[in-house]
Amino acid sequence: MSLRLGQIVDALGGSLEGGDRDTVIVRIAPLETADASSISFLHNPRYVTQLAHSKAACVIVAETMREAALAHGTCIVTPDPYVYFARLTQLWQAQQPAAWPVGIHHSAIVHPQAQVDPTATIGPQCVVERGAVIGAHTVLRSHVHVGERCRIGQRCLLHPGVVVGADGFGFAKQAGRWHKIEQLGAVAIGDDVEIGANTCIDRGALDDTVVADGVKIDNLVQIAHNVRIGAHTVIAGNTGIAGSARIGAHCSIGGAANILGHLEIADGTSISPTSMVTRSIHKPDLYTGIFPLQTNTEWEKNAASFKQLYQLRERIKKLEKALDALTGDK
Amino acid sequence: MSLRLGQIVDALGGSLEGGDRDTVIVRIAPLETADASSISFLHNPRYVTQLAHSKAACVIVAETMREAALAHGTCIVTPDPYVYFARLTQLWQAQQPAAWPVGIHHSAIVHPQAQVDPTATIGPQCVVERGAVIGAHTVLRSHVHVGERCRIGQRCLLHPGVVVGADGFGFAKQAGRWHKIEQLGAVAIGDDVEIGANTCIDRGALDDTVVADGVKIDNLVQIAHNVRIGAHTVIAGNTGIAGSARIGAHCSIGGAANILGHLEIADGTSISPTSMVTRSIHKPDLYTGIFPLQTNTEWEKNAASFKQLYQLRERIKKLEKALDALTGDK
Amino acid sequence: MSLRLGQIVDALGGSLEGGDRDTVIVRIAPLETADASSISFLHNPRYVTQLAHSKAACVIVAETMREAALAHGTCIVTPDPYVYFARLTQLWQAQQPAAWPVGIHHSAIVHPQAQVDPTATIGPQCVVERGAVIGAHTVLRSHVHVGERCRIGQRCLLHPGVVVGADGFGFAKQAGRWHKIEQLGAVAIGDDVEIGANTCIDRGALDDTVVADGVKIDNLVQIAHNVRIGAHTVIAGNTGIAGSARIGAHCSIGGAANILGHLEIADGTSISPTSMVTRSIHKPDLYTGIFPLQTNTEWEKNAASFKQLYQLRERIKKLEKALDALTGDK
Repeated sequence: MSLRLGQIVDALGGSLEGGDRDTVIVRIAPLETADASSISFLHNPRYVTQLAHSKAACVIVAETMREAALAHGTCIVTPDPYVYFARLTQLWQAQQPAAWPVGIHHSAIVHPQAQVDPTATIGPQCVVERGAVIGAHTVLRSHVHVGERCRIGQRCLLHPGVVVGADGFGFAKQAGRWHKIEQLGAVAIGDDVEIGANTCIDRGALDDTVVADGVKIDNLVQIAHNVRIGAHTVIAGNTGIAGSARIGAHCSIGGAANILGHLEIADGTSISPTSMVTRSIHKPDLYTGIFPLQTNTEWEKNAASFKQLYQLRERIKKLEKALDALTGDK
Repeated sequence: MSLRLGQIVDALGGSLEGGDRDTVIVRIAPLETADASSISFLHNPRYVTQLAHSKAACVIVAETMREAALAHGTCIVTPDPYVYFARLTQLWQAQQPAAWPVGIHHSAIVHPQAQVDPTATIGPQCVVERGAVIGAHTVLRSHVHVGERCRIGQRCLLHPGVVVGADGFGFAKQAGRWHKIEQLGAVAIGDDVEIGANTCIDRGALDDTVVADGVKIDNLVQIAHNVRIGAHTVIAGNTGIAGSARIGAHCSIGGAANILGHLEIADGTSISPTSMVTRSIHKPDLYTGIFPLQTNTEWEKNAASFKQLYQLRERIKKLEKALDALTGDK
Repeated sequence: MSLRLGQIVDALGGSLEGGDRDTVIVRIAPLETADASSISFLHNPRYVTQLAHSKAACVIVAETMREAALAHGTCIVTPDPYVYFARLTQLWQAQQPAAWPVGIHHSAIVHPQAQVDPTATIGPQCVVERGAVIGAHTVLRSHVHVGERCRIGQRCLLHPGVVVGADGFGFAKQAGRWHKIEQLGAVAIGDDVEIGANTCIDRGALDDTVVADGVKIDNLVQIAHNVRIGAHTVIAGNTGIAGSARIGAHCSIGGAANILGHLEIADGTSISPTSMVTRSIHKPDLYTGIFPLQTNTEWEKNAASFKQLYQLRERIKKLEKALDALTGDK
């Protein structure tokens, strides 16, 4: 695969400076590993020192970096180099055929009462059950399961092993035994949603589980029944979201975070990786609850102290009182 | 789908009061979103205020709520409204055909030496290996793997992507290299067990991994080799249970909890979500170890202090001694 | 299945003492559950007391345990009993046919431009995409996905549901929307690598994600794009490794641990289960960050105090100053 610089700016815009439209690019690469036939990008001014040593044939930069880039050689100037880079990867990818052609792979099992848009791609060994709807230009890679009555919007991408519409986890206890609560809702997924490999999104108990437009979900994420995820929120891998939680729009949930059920998270909230959300968050901010890593030797001492933290607080209170008594304060 | 109130009480019992057997119900809904053709339920007296504003055609209530419910309109009185609701969802679900009919789907791969009960359902693209046994009325949805010699009881439900009987994680180290310990045991799963999507239950090293009757396991759970899980225990999503752990009966393991290997948890123990169990638990109680969530700014200060917690304790000790010296205590 | 003791020492070496080459062994079992036709092993001197009560026909022991073992009965003496045991399980397993024969199962989908070694086994319902390479004697169990251009070395074992080469999680934000960064790299996996059920290893953004020789990965592990894992490292279940992290060789990562992106972990480092690695580790040691488990009642008090830990530290400082003023220290 190769593209000339002229083809790139013709397709994506930007101003090609200090170089030749006919230069052939055969690779997109980071500044440090780029070679003389690579195009690279600089979106963080912190890395401007890498520019001097890079062998890249052309570097995508913002206006503020133009001078430094021209000193190095050829550049493309654009308002947002990182977005330009993203679009360049799309242009690059579009050169090669899709893994599997549009349509339903012969090994996929699609129920006759499912509704698959003719522009969708149902990859090998996918299963689409009765009443499911797959929107235009949506791609199911391989081994994807879309359960009964679940609806996937347009231009979605579901990676291998995704399970949409397994039963939510609901049981009623009676004399120590569990009666299954049949999960009568479905899953509704908006447009432009990406779902990572082996991620599970359960159907709702009575109403639907809802994932809004533009949401991006990483691998091995668990989304329980009746969760609602607002538009353009991103959720990193291994995260778990318990039943009926409502995540706002434009949130960012770090990897292996966990969110308890029946709570709300405000639009624009960020959660640090591995943090546990135990209550609703009404004010958008970055929230964190990570146990600090230490050598095991240090940890053993501190963890033991932690178990007495409440008593330590009581001892401090007592000390303060005693000292007050001594010094005559009150 | 629809049911008349008379059909419901004929099938499930309970006393229909203040209304008409011929009323047609087309939806089961929570009190707040119920409409005039919905049936709803009230199992927690805290929500009794929702009753007044609900549009539900009929509400399932306990004896103690009868009066409030009759003031609202039609009700079904039953000793346990939540269990009644669960059974109602089952009645509802039974009206529609199963996703896939009883028997072995043509796309499933069942080894000729596997033993599948004729009343079982092996869904699309499942794999059942040599010597595996699938009990009566058990359902494997899609992409389920049941490995060699693993046994699944009766009336079990295995959701898409479940893997029963992959190798346990066992290796012996020699000069920095790992020799595989072949996993010669299997997995034995009791009756009435439900296993969530993409959950993995590994085969034992020498003996079997055992999941007792009535256990309910959510999505993306990891159960390592030689674990034993007692009857009617529930395990929420993303949880991990390490090798040879023994979980009692009637336990409740919260989501994303982790349980170390070679330990025992007493019958009736509850573990809060995301908690890590590092030692055996002999006394049933609710156990918790969740890192408190804070804004990142607060967390940074407190996490830094945590790393000195042991020193803080030493400083408190020293203060106490000094104060004792001053005040003449000993 | 059965083996005579003579066959075992002929195949695996070791010195058979105090017994008969013709003794028939039908089971490998732990000391405590072994019966008169079982072979067992003792690799930890702590368990020597179990020896006296074991019914095992033969026990594999080290030189130092020979005397105790001979007092019990027959033994095989070998320098490393645990490694001998591992090799014995392999000998045992080799007696029975593989789950699926060498070659490509008729239900697997292998792209005509993929390259599968004739000695490899592609199990039922696997998908191997264009340009993928599967090395000699490598086994893909069932429902395994190997994406475009990904390369798997020799003698690897990929358990059911493994996804190699789904897209890394990369997006560029513009005005609240996410532009996909197409993942143009692949995944390169060395020789003798084992990958657990439903584990995901994403393709790199520009360069490859790399798993070196001899690495062992458990179930439900998430390995993000451009991660590099050094040779002979072991990673237990439910672990997550974020993008571009570099894990050294001979590391041991506990279950449900999480490792942030763009950091480095030195060769030979161990991480305790459920610990979160937030910074590079340059000095190999055992690192831990586990929240101590308590009864919920205790936890509630200590967690509340934790949120004021920084203030507690300030109060201790103030007390120390006040005491210094009283006693005339400075």
